[in-house]
Parts: sequence; C-alpha cells; structure tokens
Amino acid sequence: MDRKLVGVDLGGTTIKFAILTDSGDVQQKWSVETNILDEGSHIVPDIIESINHHLSLYNMDKSQFIGIGMGTPGTVDRDAGTVVGAYNLNWKTTQHVRDEVEAGTGIKFTMDNDANVAGLGERWKGAGENGQDVSFVTLGTGIGGGLIAGGELLHGTAGAAGEIGHVTVEPNGYLCTCGKRGCLEQYASATGVVHVARDMAEEFSGDSELKRQTDDGQDITSKLVFDLAKGGDALAIRVVDKVSYYLGLALGNLANTLNPESIVIGGGVSAAGDFLLNQVNHYFQEFTFTTVRNSTSLKLARLGNDAGVIGAASLALSFE
Amino acid sequence: MDRKLVGVDLGGTTIKFAILTDSGDVQQKWSVETNILDEGSHIVPDIIESINHHLSLYNMDKSQFIGIGMGTPGTVDRDAGTVVGAYNLNWKTTQHVRDEVEAGTGIKFTMDNDANVAGLGERWKGAGENGQDVSFVTLGTGIGGGLIAGGELLHGTAGAAGEIGHVTVEPNGYLCTCGKRGCLEQYASATGVVHVARDMAEEFSGDSELKRQTDDGQDITSKLVFDLAKGGDALAIRVVDKVSYYLGLALGNLANTLNPESIVIGGGVSAAGDFLLNQVNHYFQEFTFTTVRNSTSLKLARLGNDAGVIGAASLALSFE
Repeated sequence: MDRKLVGVDLGGTTIKFAILTDSGDVQQKWSVETNILDEGSHIVPDIIESINHHLSLYNMDKSQFIGIGMGTPGTVDRDAGTVVGAYNLNWKTTQHVRDEVEAGTGIKFTMDNDANVAGLGERWKGAGENGQDVSFVTLGTGIGGGLIAGGELLHGTAGAAGEIGHVTVEPNGYLCTCGKRGCLEQYASATGVVHVARDMAEEFSGDSELKRQTDDGQDITSKLVFDLAKGGDALAIRVVDKVSYYLGLALGNLANTLNPESIVIGGGVSAAGDFLLNQVNHYFQEFTFTTVRNSTSLKLARLGNDAGVIGAASLALSFE
Repeated sequence: MDRKLVGVDLGGTTIKFAILTDSGDVQQKWSVETNILDEGSHIVPDIIESINHHLSLYNMDKSQFIGIGMGTPGTVDRDAGTVVGAYNLNWKTTQHVRDEVEAGTGIKFTMDNDANVAGLGERWKGAGENGQDVSFVTLGTGIGGGLIAGGELLHGTAGAAGEIGHVTVEPNGYLCTCGKRGCLEQYASATGVVHVARDMAEEFSGDSELKRQTDDGQDITSKLVFDLAKGGDALAIRVVDKVSYYLGLALGNLANTLNPESIVIGGGVSAAGDFLLNQVNHYFQEFTFTTVRNSTSLKLARLGNDAGVIGAASLALSFE
C-alpha cells in the first residue's frame, strides 16, 4: 500500500501543511493562521486539529501515514521532541511538541529547525536534485542555512551548524543583532541590502533614482534595489555588486569548507533570480580554489514556499 | 579474541606503521623510509613487505586483523581504492593501492587523505575526545583539515571538503599556490608566518631582533618568530597577532558553519602551544556568535606524529 507523509511548516504568521507520497509528491496542501496569543499555547492544539480534520476530510486513516515531520523556529531538542525560544511564536518556555502531536494524532512525529527543513526540501525535490552534499542558504529578513553532507543534515554540537548568516564577512563591519560585527546577514538579507543601500546613498553623488528615493525618506526595499539595478540605476548597481561580493565571499568559503555539489540560494532576496545569481557567481569563482570551483555550483531554489513542507515531510521518512 | 588494526601513515619521507587494538591502543610502532624512485613504484611493495615482516616478527597472523587503514597524500578514490596525483611520492598516474595491499597481505585495506586521517586520529584518541563533531586543522608547511560531523568524516562531492587552507581570509591578499588570493595557508602555515614576518619587517622601524635577522638576510622560520614573540620581541609580537587574527577569523567562520564541539589545531606551527592558542582564541571569540562561542572550543592536538597511524587504523573499524 502507498504510504504517506505529513509535512508541517510552522511560521510566525501561517502554519503550512501538506500530505505527500513517500516519494515526495505533494497530494494536498492547506494552511492556517498562526495564533500566537496566550504564549502560543493554541499552536500545537491547532496543528493537531487541522491534521485530524483534513485526514477525515480526505477519508484518510492514520494507519496510512509513515509520520509527520515539522519545521519550526526556535531551538529544537530532537531527542526530547521539544522547542524553546521561538520568540515569533511567543514560545518562551519549553514546548513538548512531539508528545502532544503524537498523542493528538496517533501518528509518529519528528521535527527540525525551519532553515534545515527548507534545505532538506530543496535537496530532495528541488534544485539539490537529491544529492548527497547540498548546502542551502535562505536570504530573507534574516539569513539561515541548512547543510546536508554525506546525505545527512548537519546539526553541530549545540544545533548551530549552518548559521551562515553569522559568518563574518567584514571584520569590524555592521553590528549584528547577534552582538558581533560584520555578519553576512547584515549585508545580504532583505534588511541588509537596504542598510548597504542607505550607506552607499550617503556617499553617492551621481544620478540615481535609488538615491532620490533614499534622500526623500521613502521606504526602501531590497526588491526596489534589485529592480532599479536591473533597470540600470548607477547606485543600485553598486549596491548589488557589494551585496554579491559578500555573498560570493561567504558562499565561496562555505564551498571551500564543505565542497557540496550545489549551494542552493532561496528566500525572498533570491527572487532577484539570475541577475543576482550571476553576480554572486562572479565573486564565488574568485573566492574558491580550483577543485571546488570545478565541482560546486550555485543554484537558485526551485520550490519557493513549498520547500518547508516538503523538507519537513522528508524528516518522517526516518520512521520507515 | 582480541582483534587488531594496522595503521599506515604514508608521507613523502617516511612511512609510519602501527599495530593497534580495536579500542585504539598502540601496541607496536615502526617506520621505514619512503622510496620515491622509479615513479614511486616501490612504495606499495615496501608497505606490503614491511607489514608481513612485522606480523611474522610479532608472531601474529592475518586472521587476527580487522583491517589495514592508511592515510596518503594525493587524491583518493575510496570506492576504487586508488590514489592519483601524489607528487611528493612521484605518483603521477593512478595507483591501485587497495587491490595490491589486499593481495599482498591477505588483510582488508581502506584509505583516506592524510589530513582527514590525522583528524580522525585526534578525534578518536586525542584532543577530540571521541566527539561526534570535531574539526581538525593542521598548520604545517601547508594547511590541511579534516572535518568530522555527526560522527562521519566529510568528503564533499570532489573530495575537497575540509580544505581550510584555501579559505579566503584576505580578499586581494597574498597569491596562493592554488592560484587564488588571500588563502589562510598564505598567512598561517609555517611558510605563511615567515611571509607575514618578512612583509611586516619591511615597514617596522622599532627595535627588534626579528627585524635585524630579516634585514640581515638570515633564514627566518615560524619557530623563530614564535620564540622571539614569547621573549617580547616587538615585531614578532605583531606578526603573531596578525597570524592569530587570520586563524581566529577562519576558525571562527568554520565554527559558525559547523558548530563542532572542538576545533583541534595540530601540525608544526601548533608547537607554539598555548601561547598561540590563547591569541587565536581571542579573535575566535570576536568572530563567533553567542551559541557557537559557548559551545565550540579550540584545542591543541595531543597525538603529535601518531595522529596519522591512529586515525588511519580507525578507518579499518568499518570492516568490523
């Protein structure tokens, strides 16, 4: 009999769900709003109810399922099945997610951190083409990463493996929310791109729509910067070059360290597409040595918002 | 019955051997000179003969052995059991090492690259304390690395994982033998330290024995630089500070990426001991974010020259 997986992608605004075959084909998708009231105490009950409701809606039985996998913010204790410190969910104290979901659904449950899970998704069914060595970096409000090496997700001793956003790319550079200086996240996340743009606008004296809007006090977004750069705006082009330089340096050193088949770039900033990829690739070539330059390639993510549920579902394959 | 391992550490000047218990205790050690004449065609026969000779000397039988593990320079194809491009052995063409050693000794054989194997050794019986996540970096004539994550050695898609020596620490910096610029190896290997010292001596105007010897055209070694710095030489202190800065940056970013329990520093330059470690640690703290700073520690290697044979032997545990 065909056995199925449930993937859950828990975020601060929505919870995404999918039912997949064990070969990773999405059969059903839905989502609900995340209710973070009352210290996030509604979240796990909402997840349980939504899964049970949809299983009955689709006339499915829990016996058809290999397991449920979930990606979550916060610090995951995989052995204990708990999450702590997911501030966008109001989860300040330890949440016993696994035990509650298993009791509530009768299906086995496992989880990992959201960036890791998105990496697993892109590796399994996306740009990573099911490779054994795939690194994933997501350029969103912040920068996260998921590293798969030798077929296994890397966690590190305290779960901080893959924190590419906090790689130092500019000693004594911008102060990061993490407390140290010069983190990649401060230069190449959506907010980082805007920070770079504002600083470069101050010193820029040529003709530029980006400079006019910045000087005007208008809201600048990373999308605007990339759109203007594509249109030939002189300042925006310089900003994208600087952002690409830092990404090329960080991803080049990631490749010099792990030599993955591919580094997959996802998240909102990656919507800039090949325009961004080609410029990052220019610096990536400069910062990698021959063997790595010839064997590791940069790619754009392919799954978009589905990476999370697909990768989460793949976690449950371990129950097979 | 107690089962044993053979570890072989193949280098350009000597081949080191050891017989170990399966818990990693060294019972016998010996070495022979590496005969690189005739395109290195004597090397594998010499290894076979030396193992067979010592087994008979110690009244041991091949049936007592789980396997032979070897660390080697060059590019290893682990599936094929071959090595190519080990120029310090004169091995320019593909060498079918595994098949020859297995045929010649009647014992199963496996191998990996020398830096990886030294990393395995330090992880198993040295400073890595048998941890699941241990990074090893060797500061010798060049800089090599071996990365163990989730209990497994990382290889990458083309075997270049762990090439910490070619991480870019100074964009547009010194030209490396690999063809790119600013590699860690150019600043923190034994030759790198001397390069930094010579450049800083040119611009230094204070009183310094290191400057006098450099200006005098004397041979400078990294050992001399560290010894003078320990003695208070003003220029040598600045050189060690600069070397430590680059090591702290590279190892900090390695830790931000992999979050190992420990990064073990070995090789000739690490003979500078705690004097070096403390200064690298100062920059390492600066370049790591909180979770990593609190969970990843820098350590000095403990096994010295034995790391290779011990780690090599541990490879053969896979035959158990």
